[in-house]
Amino acid sequence: MPLSSYRQFEPALAFAAQSTERTMERLLPRGEEGEARVFDAMRYSSLGGGKRLRAFFVLAGATVFKVGAMPALRTASAIEFVHAYSLIHDDLPAMDDDAVRRGKPSCHKEFDEATAILAGDALQALAFEVLAHEATHGDPAVRAALVSELAKAAGAHGMVGGQMLDLLAETQAPDMSIGAITRLQRLKTGALISFSCTAGAILGKAAEPMRAALAAFAHDLGLAFQIVDDLLDVEGDAAELGKATNKDAAAGKATFVSILGVERARAQASLLAQQAATHLEPLGASADLLKQAAKFVVQRRV
Amino acid sequence: MPLSSYRQFEPALAFAAQSTERTMERLLPRGEEGEARVFDAMRYSSLGGGKRLRAFFVLAGATVFKVGAMPALRTASAIEFVHAYSLIHDDLPAMDDDAVRRGKPSCHKEFDEATAILAGDALQALAFEVLAHEATHGDPAVRAALVSELAKAAGAHGMVGGQMLDLLAETQAPDMSIGAITRLQRLKTGALISFSCTAGAILGKAAEPMRAALAAFAHDLGLAFQIVDDLLDVEGDAAELGKATNKDAAAGKATFVSILGVERARAQASLLAQQAATHLEPLGASADLLKQAAKFVVQRRV
Repeated sequence: MPLSSYRQFEPALAFAAQSTERTMERLLPRGEEGEARVFDAMRYSSLGGGKRLRAFFVLAGATVFKVGAMPALRTASAIEFVHAYSLIHDDLPAMDDDAVRRGKPSCHKEFDEATAILAGDALQALAFEVLAHEATHGDPAVRAALVSELAKAAGAHGMVGGQMLDLLAETQAPDMSIGAITRLQRLKTGALISFSCTAGAILGKAAEPMRAALAAFAHDLGLAFQIVDDLLDVEGDAAELGKATNKDAAAGKATFVSILGVERARAQASLLAQQAATHLEPLGASADLLKQAAKFVVQRRV
Repeated sequence: MPLSSYRQFEPALAFAAQSTERTMERLLPRGEEGEARVFDAMRYSSLGGGKRLRAFFVLAGATVFKVGAMPALRTASAIEFVHAYSLIHDDLPAMDDDAVRRGKPSCHKEFDEATAILAGDALQALAFEVLAHEATHGDPAVRAALVSELAKAAGAHGMVGGQMLDLLAETQAPDMSIGAITRLQRLKTGALISFSCTAGAILGKAAEPMRAALAAFAHDLGLAFQIVDDLLDVEGDAAELGKATNKDAAAGKATFVSILGVERARAQASLLAQQAATHLEPLGASADLLKQAAKFVVQRRV
């Protein structure tokens, strides 16, 4: 049963998570060679957990443009590999120093720091290998476009730049404005979410206005998502979330919540999510699952 | 003056290094934004040093197939970015813990560990971004093939797998055979050298036997290169090399030299380099610079 046959968001999310996980499982290396320790670490940190929201965005975007299951699932897997690599590296002692991730020991705790660094590095390479493979799309121009967009979203002008800003923010917190935090989050999490939401349009060779509508949706939704993340860091339950809470306040970091306060932050997230959904109007009913996702993002507890 | 107009290896290598360095300089991020610290670290570790042998292999391979300067220089830059990222991560305290690289403080010493991890991550992403860009080749199938081959060479079944083996080898040294060390080095350094030597054939859409000849050349040369690296670790001068020596023996690592002894290791390197050159016979005089490179690799002192 394809994703397009789902009418409700939550079963659709569960389906997207399961089918992407199965694809990732097949794409990840496995073996008995001496270097298999790094294969194990890659599997440990990328399989068996996570909401897979990014994968859902890819699959839901792909249904709008009637993209086949395999191209969408491979693209979703590539993005989840990059997301997993970023979590492994962010959790390292030299970075955010987190011992728990998705309710289990983080990669460097389960293995060791060297293996964790290498597993992250190999997951990033795997993401590009998957996108460039002809099984992802018959048209090499589409494959090259996917690689190009993912590389930009993940690199120095995207996710890595955002993480650099985030690390520096710990020492600059009192001076950070809402504008600066917004820019940080657009880089750190927004860029990859944007690519997730627009990948279906690339795969489906959609007309530019359609892709722009999804980009606008992603722009607002990514920010709403991050505000809710900050709220959950303050109000969430560590056991449910599978990671430590109150980290930002403990680190003295400025967040949307520390600047706006809980109430205004929540109101802002709701406003952004509504605004995100309105960008999808030109896409009609085919974008209903994405609209529902916008609601979910602000109501989520984990 | 294009590389094809050079008759002698050493000026050709210097030309390849300078022109690739200029291209890398233009491709690297630069700016005044808050995250510019990671741009600075990327530039610090990828510019201003290194023999640029990998870049030379790309450019020399490209002249065989009459590939234009820009495609070859961009491909060479991408490979040098991956090489630079691997050195940054390998030097980290959790990995080989090296304080000096190319005669200056390694990246995490000049900046800090978090910045070094991020700079490596962003350099990897940049390599794929450069290859996927249309300025690298007009045919998207060629761009996708370059991405695919680089990802395989850099990933878990290539460079990262080799580094994992290398880290594990420190505890397994007494049990390592020549076969096991050969496999380790084929992954750790051989895979990227092979891609460097065959990239010109991909860019030039060369017939398969031509590409196979270059792959065979790279296969033997890569191993010769590594044996010489082991010899230099024992016999070389730290100041000239710009990095610490005697590291392998100090770490109790098995190497070609510890198993074969200095004389047999040197003889084996020479034999492999001669064998490498014979693979290039079908390519005629256009491959003369590559043949000279094989001689250089075994005679080098740095």
